[in-house]
Amino acid sequence: MIEAPPGAGFFATHTVAGLAADLRTGRRSAADLVEHALAEAARSTLNAFVTVDEPGARAAAHRAADELAAGVDRGPLHGIPVAVKDLVDTAGLRTTMGSRHFADRVPDRDAECVRRLREAGAVVVGKTVTHEFAYGPTGDKSAHGPAHNPYRPDAMSGGSSAGSAVAVAAGIVPLAVGTDTGGSVRIPAAACGVTGLRPTYGAVPVDGVFPLSPTLDSVGPLARTIDDCRLMWRVLAGREAPEASTRPVRIGWVEPEAFHPADEAVTAAARKLVPDAETVEVPDARVLLADYRLIQSAEAYEIHAERVARAPELFGDELVARLRVAEQVRGWEYVRALEHRRRAVATVETLFDGQDVLALPTLPITAPPIGARRTSAGGREVDVRAALLSQTSPWSVLGLPALSVPAGLVDGMPAGLQLVANPGGEELLFVVAERLVQPPR
Amino acid sequence: MIEAPPGAGFFATHTVAGLAADLRTGRRSAADLVEHALAEAARSTLNAFVTVDEPGARAAAHRAADELAAGVDRGPLHGIPVAVKDLVDTAGLRTTMGSRHFADRVPDRDAECVRRLREAGAVVVGKTVTHEFAYGPTGDKSAHGPAHNPYRPDAMSGGSSAGSAVAVAAGIVPLAVGTDTGGSVRIPAAACGVTGLRPTYGAVPVDGVFPLSPTLDSVGPLARTIDDCRLMWRVLAGREAPEASTRPVRIGWVEPEAFHPADEAVTAAARKLVPDAETVEVPDARVLLADYRLIQSAEAYEIHAERVARAPELFGDELVARLRVAEQVRGWEYVRALEHRRRAVATVETLFDGQDVLALPTLPITAPPIGARRTSAGGREVDVRAALLSQTSPWSVLGLPALSVPAGLVDGMPAGLQLVANPGGEELLFVVAERLVQPPR
Repeated sequence: MIEAPPGAGFFATHTVAGLAADLRTGRRSAADLVEHALAEAARSTLNAFVTVDEPGARAAAHRAADELAAGVDRGPLHGIPVAVKDLVDTAGLRTTMGSRHFADRVPDRDAECVRRLREAGAVVVGKTVTHEFAYGPTGDKSAHGPAHNPYRPDAMSGGSSAGSAVAVAAGIVPLAVGTDTGGSVRIPAAACGVTGLRPTYGAVPVDGVFPLSPTLDSVGPLARTIDDCRLMWRVLAGREAPEASTRPVRIGWVEPEAFHPADEAVTAAARKLVPDAETVEVPDARVLLADYRLIQSAEAYEIHAERVARAPELFGDELVARLRVAEQVRGWEYVRALEHRRRAVATVETLFDGQDVLALPTLPITAPPIGARRTSAGGREVDVRAALLSQTSPWSVLGLPALSVPAGLVDGMPAGLQLVANPGGEELLFVVAERLVQPPR
Repeated sequence: MIEAPPGAGFFATHTVAGLAADLRTGRRSAADLVEHALAEAARSTLNAFVTVDEPGARAAAHRAADELAAGVDRGPLHGIPVAVKDLVDTAGLRTTMGSRHFADRVPDRDAECVRRLREAGAVVVGKTVTHEFAYGPTGDKSAHGPAHNPYRPDAMSGGSSAGSAVAVAAGIVPLAVGTDTGGSVRIPAAACGVTGLRPTYGAVPVDGVFPLSPTLDSVGPLARTIDDCRLMWRVLAGREAPEASTRPVRIGWVEPEAFHPADEAVTAAARKLVPDAETVEVPDARVLLADYRLIQSAEAYEIHAERVARAPELFGDELVARLRVAEQVRGWEYVRALEHRRRAVATVETLFDGQDVLALPTLPITAPPIGARRTSAGGREVDVRAALLSQTSPWSVLGLPALSVPAGLVDGMPAGLQLVANPGGEELLFVVAERLVQPPR
């Protein structure tokens, strides 16, 4: 783990496993935990939350406490506060997509991922700021204003699961739900110094999650520690803990420059965690970036076409302008991108014949200032969005699971290491990450 | 069957089963049959063939005859002449796609469907005219000129498997390979008064077939009789004859006007074969037509993008103009069409809860004059291409098998009845067609 950000709250110094033990010894109660979360949320000035559901959270915490007292134990998340990205439906609790189009929308039903969390006893504290419609990796444009980076509040949090990363990094909650299309869990996780998983495409149901690009969308956990993230992943995916594996793991290093110019210090921070990894090459690396743009643009515009036609003024200026560009993507370009994706999936599979896990920086830079759209990376002036998405979106295109873990601070700002596995390799990612970040003594 | 066209050749009066029997009694030899085919091809002025492979055909016929004489029997197609659409690779034999882009192309390998035919002992006589790149239902634009309708040579044959339908209708060969994306087997089959099957999507491999729109493309047989068509289907699909079924079949009638204005006399000719069918409605019928246009356009442009950029002059004027329109289809429109297709497949499945087979005219009109692009249908002025595709392309979008059988003559020109089944229902289609066209006495 890295040094907590200035002023971080209660959950910055407590793990889920530790709290779960406390709940069972009676040292703490679920009601205590929810009060910590509500107090931290109220105290925070980082704009992590769109909605804090005090009565709902307290009621859920009391139910959780009563159940535990009555001997009903729902597992490690029982009584643990969680935050949910405001792109994910919560029954009876306003869900806005970060957009004025849905300013007052209250869904009837929980998204399947939320239902699973509640079933596991987790206590939903509130809804976190999402980049408007999850359509942006900066986390600084939404109907509810920008989320602020806990390490430097004038820096962006990254996005689109901006508030979820901020809420975890700032110790407001130990766990939060994010969604990841091109990097929307991993990017803010890395920018804010927490752990975030994009699961294998399809591993966690997206029912009740507002779509951005259906062939790329995923739901994933954000947590401070690797172990906490894994506990939440298992609940989201409905998986049991597998048997522990101790076999050696081969790690391949992917140079970030294959995708985009990168700051040397940021690359070095990530590389330091995998000093022995052999460098491997991803074929057609830059084509994967183009595939991402084409697929995401066409699918996202399809989702928003009627809103753009009928009420463009309800979008933020930046988003409506981006949608108008997305509208221009041609059908044949989309077809070709899908075709290249099919071929690339097969090609990249062969990379995993020689390696179990690929490693690379999650971001080529640390978090730029809120509102910045140009910045420098590796000494080159670059587009901020392109830079933020450059290391994460290729794995989205390929449908692979990818975990971002903190890789120290660079000039006081977090850097991230991203680990990528074959489909279904989430547990392997957690094992490898623990070995790298908390090497066995 | 309908009255053969004027001047029809040898194979207009012989069935495959009859010829197969003759080959085995020694009444005829495979060499005799190939000479009939070569003579008819030489005599015909309908422009059915791009290439007639006299030496290759004769050599294959002699091999077939030698095998039969030696007791090697490859089944009902052994020694039977077949023609192959010039969009389908034939090893060592020029394959042009009806295009100047491939004027001199000689493939190394047979397409899988051709390999299966040769394996079954069929004798490939030559390559038939295809509408340029199979991109057109009229059959009158190709680098090799229009195919002529045997019933009236100034009328179009329909396309894109134009020459295959003409070669069969004119009695030059008993069997021909076609391909069907939006109706390219069924349309010329109906226009020329023969039988043609579009199989279930994926049932016959398209390896070695030049693509038009890969999520819609199929390979199918054309023959004069239903039984001949079935024999060829089984070889193409690699299927054995199933056990005979005698259970009653429920037939639903689909009004052609659901898709497009239709000539009453043409509709009546088809309806006459299914007098007792109950009328059913296809939900969102016209949306399926739009889906077809969007999917086919985007996928086809993807195939041709580099040719349009580098050598537009090698396309026919009409095709390059159509490609430039296809280029404009937006990615989001394509995505939406695929999405609607997914939903429509589920909806139309429920139609088959009440019906085993759907019946409708294959075409809403009889074959217009060669070169015509506007015509009348049901008293309305309409676009010829849209009219020709209107009754066939919806089933392509849905991936369903569909059989076109002759339904008599209207003012001397053939009309067709189309029968559509659930996926995998090809054998049912043949059974139903036989009962309707040749009712048991």
